Amino acid sequence: MTTPYDTILITGAAGRLGRELRHGLAPLARTIRLADREMITDLKPNEEAVIFDLADEAATMEATKGVDAIVHMGGAPVELPWQEILDSTIRGTYHLYEGARKHGVKRIAYASSVHAIGYHRLTDHIDADSRVRPDSLYGVSKCFVEALSSLYWDKFGIETACVRIFSSFPEPADRRHLWSWLSFDDCVRLFTACLTAPHVGHTITFGMSDNKVKPVDNSKAGHLGYIPQDSTEPFRAALEATVPVADPMALATRCYGGGFVDFPHPDDETAQ
Amino acid sequence: MTTPYDTILITGAAGRLGRELRHGLAPLARTIRLADREMITDLKPNEEAVIFDLADEAATMEATKGVDAIVHMGGAPVELPWQEILDSTIRGTYHLYEGARKHGVKRIAYASSVHAIGYHRLTDHIDADSRVRPDSLYGVSKCFVEALSSLYWDKFGIETACVRIFSSFPEPADRRHLWSWLSFDDCVRLFTACLTAPHVGHTITFGMSDNKVKPVDNSKAGHLGYIPQDSTEPFRAALEATVPVADPMALATRCYGGGFVDFPHPDDETAQ
Amino acid sequence: MTTPYDTILITGAAGRLGRELRHGLAPLARTIRLADREMITDLKPNEEAVIFDLADEAATMEATKGVDAIVHMGGAPVELPWQEILDSTIRGTYHLYEGARKHGVKRIAYASSVHAIGYHRLTDHIDADSRVRPDSLYGVSKCFVEALSSLYWDKFGIETACVRIFSSFPEPADRRHLWSWLSFDDCVRLFTACLTAPHVGHTITFGMSDNKVKPVDNSKAGHLGYIPQDSTEPFRAALEATVPVADPMALATRCYGGGFVDFPHPDDETAQ
Amino acid sequence: MTTPYDTILITGAAGRLGRELRHGLAPLARTIRLADREMITDLKPNEEAVIFDLADEAATMEATKGVDAIVHMGGAPVELPWQEILDSTIRGTYHLYEGARKHGVKRIAYASSVHAIGYHRLTDHIDADSRVRPDSLYGVSKCFVEALSSLYWDKFGIETACVRIFSSFPEPADRRHLWSWLSFDDCVRLFTACLTAPHVGHTITFGMSDNKVKPVDNSKAGHLGYIPQDSTEPFRAALEATVPVADPMALATRCYGGGFVDFPHPDDETAQ
Amino acid sequence: MTTPYDTILITGAAGRLGRELRHGLAPLARTIRLADREMITDLKPNEEAVIFDLADEAATMEATKGVDAIVHMGGAPVELPWQEILDSTIRGTYHLYEGARKHGVKRIAYASSVHAIGYHRLTDHIDADSRVRPDSLYGVSKCFVEALSSLYWDKFGIETACVRIFSSFPEPADRRHLWSWLSFDDCVRLFTACLTAPHVGHTITFGMSDNKVKPVDNSKAGHLGYIPQDSTEPFRAALEATVPVADPMALATRCYGGGFVDFPHPDDETAQ
Amino acid sequence: MTTPYDTILITGAAGRLGRELRHGLAPLARTIRLADREMITDLKPNEEAVIFDLADEAATMEATKGVDAIVHMGGAPVELPWQEILDSTIRGTYHLYEGARKHGVKRIAYASSVHAIGYHRLTDHIDADSRVRPDSLYGVSKCFVEALSSLYWDKFGIETACVRIFSSFPEPADRRHLWSWLSFDDCVRLFTACLTAPHVGHTITFGMSDNKVKPVDNSKAGHLGYIPQDSTEPFRAALEATVPVADPMALATRCYGGGFVDFPHPDDETAQ
Repeated sequence: MTTPYDTILITGAAGRLGRELRHGLAPLARTIRLADREMITDLKPNEEAVIFDLADEAATMEATKGVDAIVHMGGAPVELPWQEILDSTIRGTYHLYEGARKHGVKRIAYASSVHAIGYHRLTDHIDADSRVRPDSLYGVSKCFVEALSSLYWDKFGIETACVRIFSSFPEPADRRHLWSWLSFDDCVRLFTACLTAPHVGHTITFGMSDNKVKPVDNSKAGHLGYIPQDSTEPFRAALEATVPVADPMALATRCYGGGFVDFPHPDDETAQ
Repeated sequence: MTTPYDTILITGAAGRLGRELRHGLAPLARTIRLADREMITDLKPNEEAVIFDLADEAATMEATKGVDAIVHMGGAPVELPWQEILDSTIRGTYHLYEGARKHGVKRIAYASSVHAIGYHRLTDHIDADSRVRPDSLYGVSKCFVEALSSLYWDKFGIETACVRIFSSFPEPADRRHLWSWLSFDDCVRLFTACLTAPHVGHTITFGMSDNKVKPVDNSKAGHLGYIPQDSTEPFRAALEATVPVADPMALATRCYGGGFVDFPHPDDETAQ
Repeated sequence: MTTPYDTILITGAAGRLGRELRHGLAPLARTIRLADREMITDLKPNEEAVIFDLADEAATMEATKGVDAIVHMGGAPVELPWQEILDSTIRGTYHLYEGARKHGVKRIAYASSVHAIGYHRLTDHIDADSRVRPDSLYGVSKCFVEALSSLYWDKFGIETACVRIFSSFPEPADRRHLWSWLSFDDCVRLFTACLTAPHVGHTITFGMSDNKVKPVDNSKAGHLGYIPQDSTEPFRAALEATVPVADPMALATRCYGGGFVDFPHPDDETAQ
Repeated sequence: MTTPYDTILITGAAGRLGRELRHGLAPLARTIRLADREMITDLKPNEEAVIFDLADEAATMEATKGVDAIVHMGGAPVELPWQEILDSTIRGTYHLYEGARKHGVKRIAYASSVHAIGYHRLTDHIDADSRVRPDSLYGVSKCFVEALSSLYWDKFGIETACVRIFSSFPEPADRRHLWSWLSFDDCVRLFTACLTAPHVGHTITFGMSDNKVKPVDNSKAGHLGYIPQDSTEPFRAALEATVPVADPMALATRCYGGGFVDFPHPDDETAQ
Repeated sequence: MTTPYDTILITGAAGRLGRELRHGLAPLARTIRLADREMITDLKPNEEAVIFDLADEAATMEATKGVDAIVHMGGAPVELPWQEILDSTIRGTYHLYEGARKHGVKRIAYASSVHAIGYHRLTDHIDADSRVRPDSLYGVSKCFVEALSSLYWDKFGIETACVRIFSSFPEPADRRHLWSWLSFDDCVRLFTACLTAPHVGHTITFGMSDNKVKPVDNSKAGHLGYIPQDSTEPFRAALEATVPVADPMALATRCYGGGFVDFPHPDDETAQ
Repeated sequence: MTTPYDTILITGAAGRLGRELRHGLAPLARTIRLADREMITDLKPNEEAVIFDLADEAATMEATKGVDAIVHMGGAPVELPWQEILDSTIRGTYHLYEGARKHGVKRIAYASSVHAIGYHRLTDHIDADSRVRPDSLYGVSKCFVEALSSLYWDKFGIETACVRIFSSFPEPADRRHLWSWLSFDDCVRLFTACLTAPHVGHTITFGMSDNKVKPVDNSKAGHLGYIPQDSTEPFRAALEATVPVADPMALATRCYGGGFVDFPHPDDETAQ
């Protein structure tokens, strides 16, 4: 079988989405290299595992050797204290791109986040060119990577698709998920599109399923070729029956970022 | 059964669309309160009727007591002399919003009209933010309500979806309807979406079915979650066989408002 | 001397701006007809006075006889209870436009207001095509006139320039005035431009002086030919020395409408 | 049977797409008049043939007699030396429009090309109003016709739909075709839409199938009513298995025009 | 003295604007080569003359030898029959660009025209990226050159500034000129800017003086560095005293192209 | 004397622009606190000095005590190896914003850079909302701070004006400077505007003088009230006489970032 790539590196491979992509992207490469800070033991024949912290420059760069494409799910997965955001997402991703540059990686699909634009209002109907408006340090670090990857495309020719993942869970669990949900299968479809599109350059896209409620304009990423297949409608009746209606004037209802806009500063929290 | 609302008030409930919505929206509330100037006699168990003229401030406000949501189809249904437009749509709707404000109504779905933007050209491909350009006093009064409801959202937190209904009839009867038609079923789907969307704020949307010919950009209302299911295609062959081709240079052919752009002033008409 | 017009009618001629325009626009017509609800006694040779209430349809229409152009400053001058807004601005302006239509008035310059778009944010940098977002019933009534005048241009060929006046006072008196101020001389320049521009059609413009702080994009009214000459800079130091800094997060600081966004409903006030 | 037109003239009827449209558009007229420089012999009962060179003004004008609508596929089909572009596309199309004007043709569907905007980047996501940016003399001549037809609509009321055909072949044969392919059936659907839309005026549209990869925004031609049915997905696996990945930094990969952006000047070529 | 160029070729040098530019641009080159169909006899020491018809390919190409920059004022100066438009503007300009390509000309400033976009409305406030909408064959030929020069920049690196000249006369003579006038001095400033801007690429700009009435957005050509100094205001009073007010509903009043939108087809005229 | 602020902290106060602002901003506060890594000895009576490295969290936070406003010129001043960019601009600025948050700083003016958008083309005429496109690690770190400050406004109410400084030197020295130059006096005017504007929220602006050549649209920062007074014109003749014309096709000529787009990776350089 011909595969588009010889070896794909997946960082954060032990995480919620990493696990899905590990299997979902298998058809795209002869070898899937799984990276995480923790041991992955249930390797399949087409898989190999590497253990390292993204903050470790040498180890991270080493992990990109022999790699054609990277699916970068690693780094801080939620809002965390600054030092962790800095080490894992900011420093860690820089290490990864340096590895990519040194070792000839061609394309990267990056797990950015809705939280890079979390303070925009649903009624703004933003598109991929709208100004960033992060709702957390987590979101700020995503903006950093989006900017970094833009540089690596313009200057070094490494293509990156930045996927602003909205809410990727097994099932929608919140009224906000009615529009923000990204099913696991659609997540696989989306990252597959990022890795197989005829041209990516530097692209930003919003990661959602084909939910009825569509609060953003995703057309500027049309060249990725992502066509979602799932929707929250089958879950809607049950969800509406159990989750109370949100206050329409609350910021968390009006903003893409949902509850993140109400989070306190993470360094205050850890101090408590 | 859980319903999103306890009581929905439908104004203009005896009108062409009011009758459709009365049945179509039944699943959304335990009680549907039907308002019109004329008696409605065939009440179903989940329905109750109130008779009043929207120009009557006290009666209108009284009708909004105990109501969670309003579907406002009342007011002048076509171009009419100024005094009728003024009393029913302008004064009447003000009365209704004051009732909503006093009695804690949460959300309103309003039957605005294509005639609020009737002088724009089909080739303008306007969206919900395009400047109003009414083609009649009827259209001007719709612009008034759109502005009024914007205020009631920004200042008082009452959500309104303004549905610019294009042409909602049992069947398309004109070549213009090829793009402007809104089937009754899609009309129900659209008002259902307005009442069940997770966030509305103040939204303007164009009310059309999924006709092949699409002369407007409706994406800025994507957060309503309206997905039309009907189309004029099944009617097209018959319609083209019987309705002559319109003059391509005529304003009525080029403008969204169709024949309304050629109407004389309604007060001149009544004088005759 | 040749003047562009034979007779200009100024409504609200006894008001703050009406008085300025009465003198400032004198060069534009052989006769200035001054209209107000109160007697104007100090008539100059080129002036004539008419007394009536805009709510009086017959009197209003009569006042437009023999008129070429109207400067419509009349109607409710600030936020007022609904009945006054309705009678003076909504009904009154309709009467005036009907007079204009019946008697062949060619062009109207209308005193609209920043309060038609008062809930937009300064950082939105709106232009004349941005959606209306009124901050008061006063603002809603301005939106009504803007829509009405659009109809009278498209259908009846009567040109109107809608001037969204920001803050026209003898001197700036508030930090908000640093950007919103329209000097009386610039006000005259602006209405002169509206009456002498080679083409107006239906135009919306923002009325401000050449203040350094420029929070809107007025370029879509460039065909009016208004070039402001005044600025708030000469007043700035004194103003900053006496007026405390506003809370940057307050809506009244962030919105074009300033304090209007915090006003309660005017009918509630009168009830007290 | 009622047909929208009595007689449709198809120029370039012997060409690749002409042959498809000749059959596909048969339901739209009682007579299809086939024009080409070469003899067409296999005429069906509803067809008639005329032979002439578009550079021949008299013959071209004569061919438009008795015609209601024209499908203009003629002219230079690819990049060619200037003299051929000039004679066939520029001069020839002028002759055709003059014929249309003289003989009362109502509507024209024109085979423009992606090469009118070939130097724009895929990531620009242009729409029909984006500035032209031709990649060849062929493309320049398409821009000429788009401008000419705009004049004939605004001044003479002849409607034209300019179809910027991307890649219309029996099957996609290149990775670029993954997004640029227009199936023959969709080509017929598209020209049918151009000829049956209730209003065309002067419209520019992009001609592609419903491929997953969508690098342009075609919504401004929504009033044509073209809904593609085909896609390159069934061909994708085979194509990816045989065609090597393109250099992501190459202009031909990044631009809509593909290889045309690398073509030398055609007059240099012929000199060789 | 250092000059930016060694030799500038001015085509149409005997025409109204050619004569102005011939003197105004003298500081920009050691030699100004003057081209026209007629003899120019009053040569200054820094000038040389060449006589040829742009339709003559060999002569036109020969005239570009040894040239660094071209100011292309030649071609049909007004609406003319097709054959003249074709020969002088379309064919002639192609010859000129081929000469430029063959002989290493670096930059061209081209006299395009408002008539390339003449059917847009003043209230459209178009910018340089708005779709072309020519009002004459003359305008269509300007669109052709704009497209051709775009190709020669993208493919061959020859920079062109397309100056859409509005109304360049000694004095404004029409109410339309209040906004469309380009003084001769500003015309020189504008073409000087085109030839000395640090970067031109392919740029479209509108050629007008600093008139108060500004109906277009010229900001997309800001990189040319053109700052007009003249205005129609000194002429306004006299002009308004003698030229009657235009019908506000007339197309010629509403469109940038003025009277051109009412011109009949030029080939019909010559037939008379 | 009343000053807008009690104490302004200037970071990078010993740098080229820091020195200018130190004197230029003196009228805005009773005390100017000068921060740098090196000793500043020539203190004036209104000045006080603090020495620390921005990478030192405790010292940086300490320096913000008792401060009303910050002018943040510190951090890496040009492209540098990653570790220095990380420590001084990314980590350092985070420390500064944390200090601001903890100690109630109201407003920050930040020295961002053209290199945050350096890969955009001059002919793109970007505005403040255009997507970032950094040309260096230096530029990426500026994007980081722009995102971080957006968060601190939306979440914590600290206003920031991000000034994308183009080229601020004593005199323009390059043809690119013809449009990119920011005179020292205008630099002072601009930062003064940032600190005295009635409302800043989170604003991005381009820092240039009133040069004739204007390649960006700065109108979205109009609410800052910055009106430049200087221009490169007085320097132009001398500059053009000595600096050769740039290759028009070179990326460094076409991009805002100039030579930065051609820089190699800084970590490669240090390795040499």
